[in-house]
Amino acid sequence: MNQEQPVKWGSPLMYRVIYGDTDRAGVVYYANYLRLFEMGRTEWMRHMLGIPYRQLEDSGVLFPVVEAYLRYKSPAGYDDFLEIRTALEGASPVALTFRYEVKKDDRLLVTGSTKHAAADSNGRLIRIPKRLSDALSAL
Amino acid sequence: MNQEQPVKWGSPLMYRVIYGDTDRAGVVYYANYLRLFEMGRTEWMRHMLGIPYRQLEDSGVLFPVVEAYLRYKSPAGYDDFLEIRTALEGASPVALTFRYEVKKDDRLLVTGSTKHAAADSNGRLIRIPKRLSDALSAL
Amino acid sequence: MNQEQPVKWGSPLMYRVIYGDTDRAGVVYYANYLRLFEMGRTEWMRHMLGIPYRQLEDSGVLFPVVEAYLRYKSPAGYDDFLEIRTALEGASPVALTFRYEVKKDDRLLVTGSTKHAAADSNGRLIRIPKRLSDALSAL
Amino acid sequence: MNQEQPVKWGSPLMYRVIYGDTDRAGVVYYANYLRLFEMGRTEWMRHMLGIPYRQLEDSGVLFPVVEAYLRYKSPAGYDDFLEIRTALEGASPVALTFRYEVKKDDRLLVTGSTKHAAADSNGRLIRIPKRLSDALSAL
Repeated sequence: MNQEQPVKWGSPLMYRVIYGDTDRAGVVYYANYLRLFEMGRTEWMRHMLGIPYRQLEDSGVLFPVVEAYLRYKSPAGYDDFLEIRTALEGASPVALTFRYEVKKDDRLLVTGSTKHAAADSNGRLIRIPKRLSDALSAL
Repeated sequence: MNQEQPVKWGSPLMYRVIYGDTDRAGVVYYANYLRLFEMGRTEWMRHMLGIPYRQLEDSGVLFPVVEAYLRYKSPAGYDDFLEIRTALEGASPVALTFRYEVKKDDRLLVTGSTKHAAADSNGRLIRIPKRLSDALSAL
Repeated sequence: MNQEQPVKWGSPLMYRVIYGDTDRAGVVYYANYLRLFEMGRTEWMRHMLGIPYRQLEDSGVLFPVVEAYLRYKSPAGYDDFLEIRTALEGASPVALTFRYEVKKDDRLLVTGSTKHAAADSNGRLIRIPKRLSDALSAL
Repeated sequence: MNQEQPVKWGSPLMYRVIYGDTDRAGVVYYANYLRLFEMGRTEWMRHMLGIPYRQLEDSGVLFPVVEAYLRYKSPAGYDDFLEIRTALEGASPVALTFRYEVKKDDRLLVTGSTKHAAADSNGRLIRIPKRLSDALSAL
C-alpha cells in the first residue's frame, strides 16, 4: 500500500447500547466510543485482513495506539442499535491508521481515527512484518 | 489467623464519583462498585499488610476472585464523595475473604464481599505462602 | 407466577471479548461480568417478555438492582466468543430475580444472579404493575 | 477571555491505577485516559473556577464534549501513581477547550485536549452564561 491508497472499509458491525455504556446525561459516555472503535478495528482485521488480532499478537506483533481523535456530532442513547463502520485509512512501513464512523439509522453520530505503531512483544517499535504488509497490499 | 479471627478494618479511602461511573439513571452503575471494592482491597493490602498487591504478584502470588457479592441499599450519585471501607473478614490456608462498605456522609450505600483464592502465576491454586500468612497472623 | 415456578431460560446471547474488557492478568475483569449480565437480562426482557426495558422505563417502571452475586469458576480471555444465558428465576409482587451463565464452548465460566426491586421513576418502591405481572405469568 | 488568553493550569490531581483500568497488555486501556481527563476537568472547575460542574448542571448549563484528542507517548501501568494536569486552553462565547497532561514521576505519558460546547438541559447549544464567562475572564 502507499499513500495514494484508497480507504478500505470493512463490513458494518452492530452494537446494542447498554445501561453500562451510558452516563447520567442519558447518553453514551464519551470514552466508550473508543471501545466501539476497538470492536470495529478488531472485526476489520479478522474479516478484511483475514488475521485476527489475537493471532498477530501470538506471532509477536502488537499495534499499540499512539494517537486517537474523536468528533462527537450527536449522542447515542440507551438501547440504540448502533452501526460501527471501520476503514484502514493508511499504512506506512511502521504504522496503521484506522477511521471509524458510528451511525444510528444512517445518521452519523461519532467519527474518529486511531493511529497504531507496530511493536514487538517487549514494546519496541518495529517495521510491519512482510507477511502482514503483503496482506495489506493485497486488499 | 483462624476462623474466630476478628474482622480487620483498614483506614477509609475516599473516592469522588465521575460522570463515567454513572449511568442514565443518574447513579453509579452497579458494576462499578466492584471497581471501588478493588480500590479498597488494594489499599488495605498496602497499608494493613504492608505489602502492595503489585509486589505480591511480582513474587508469584496472585489472588484471583472466585466469588463476589453486592448488596445495593441506596444509590450513589454524580460528584458524591464516597468513603470505601475494607476489612479482611477471613483467611484460610488457601483463600482470603474481604468485606466492603461504601458510605456517603456516614450513610451506608452498598456493602459486599469478595473471596480470592491464592494462585501462582500460571493460575494454579496454591497455599498462601508462609511470609504472607505470617503477616496476616500478625495483624 | 408463584414460588414453584420453573426457571425460564431465554435464548443465548453471544459476546466477543475485547481488549477493553480484559485486565493485566489477561482475563476479563471481574466487574465486567455484570455488564454481560445486563446484556443478557435486557435481551431476555425483549425476547421472552416482549417488552424492551426501555419501554418499561418510558412507562414509569424501573427495576434497580438490590443484590448481585457472582461465582467465577474459570476466566474468559481476549477475543473469546462467549455465550450468555439468562433466566428469570423468580418473581414476587415487588421484585424479579435473574440467573445467569457465561459459557465458552459449553464450558461454564461464570454464574450469578441479580435481584431487582420494582420502582417508579422517583425511585420509590412499587408493586409490579398488572400488565407486567400478567406477561410474567403467561411465560 | 479572548484568543490571546494564556493557558490556565490548575493544581495537579493524583490517581492510582487499578486492575480495572488496565488491559491484557498490562497497561492502562486507551479509553480510560478520557476518564482521567474528566477527573482533571472536574477538579479544575471546582478549584479554579470555583463552580463545581454539578452546580453548573443544576443551573441548566451543560458542557457536552464535541471533540477529543489523545496522544499516547508512553504507557501507564498497574498501581502507578499518576499526576493529571488540566488547563483551560481557550474559551469562546459558545465553547471551552481543555488541555491535559498525564505524568508519572515527571515523565509525560499521555497528552490530550477536549472541546465542550455550552448547551441547555435540552441539549440545545447556547452562549456561555454571563456569570460563567465573567468567572472565566477573572481567571
